[in-house]
Amino acid sequence: MQRIPILQMGRTLLVTIQVDLQDQTALALQDDLANKIQHTGASGVLIDISALEIVDSFIGRMLAGISSIARVLGATSVVVGMQPAVAITLVELGLSLHGVRTALNVERGMRLLQQADDRLQPEVNEVSDEEQSLDADPR
Amino acid sequence: MQRIPILQMGRTLLVTIQVDLQDQTALALQDDLANKIQHTGASGVLIDISALEIVDSFIGRMLAGISSIARVLGATSVVVGMQPAVAITLVELGLSLHGVRTALNVERGMRLLQQADDRLQPEVNEVSDEEQSLDADPR
Repeated sequence: MQRIPILQMGRTLLVTIQVDLQDQTALALQDDLANKIQHTGASGVLIDISALEIVDSFIGRMLAGISSIARVLGATSVVVGMQPAVAITLVELGLSLHGVRTALNVERGMRLLQQADDRLQPEVNEVSDEEQSLDADPR
Repeated sequence: MQRIPILQMGRTLLVTIQVDLQDQTALALQDDLANKIQHTGASGVLIDISALEIVDSFIGRMLAGISSIARVLGATSVVVGMQPAVAITLVELGLSLHGVRTALNVERGMRLLQQADDRLQPEVNEVSDEEQSLDADPR
């Protein structure tokens, strides 16, 4: 059985789906991803589907499943690189990828994850918050 | 024929090889990569082979070819994620991946590319160079 590699880049995990997903491969991916999030403490998961020419209800469910698992483990996930034809077909089929966050490409997805990460770590902004309050009240 | 997606992340292109490469796929990848380097002006190429359980002389030649093409187009390439068993087999077979730079994982590869990029852009260090010469000759 084929396993889809999961790459770690800082606090983000990157998955590129290139092959037609069979049940076993999809289950193994969910499993691997959950373990990797736990081991690395990753805060974001980026799933690139630019190589997929067909996204049917099975893949849609798989993506929603991965999103839910990541959320439960405290990570944000973004699906990126969807081909325009795939987006059109999804809408025509009435598959809305409910609960799955999407972005145009890897760079925008990364930015989205960064923003989500910043929002979850308010202590990082402590200094700038102090500065702001100083600005607001200069006395 | 399957095409391997090339992801852009800033000035770096990322390629994850997950499938057994056939001649046509390998040639298409070299072609796509050369075009993408030209269009994006990328300075680095990261090739992840963590999913490959066999690296034979064909794949070795392909990796060397990609490295050469990237170099000619002014980009640095790094092969990352080689499995230990693959490394052992390569050495036993006497395949040394001549001219191919390697790193343990994506993060180290990224750092390597960053360093190569910094070295190629001396103008970025202009200020610190001036500072250095002022330090050396304070009069």
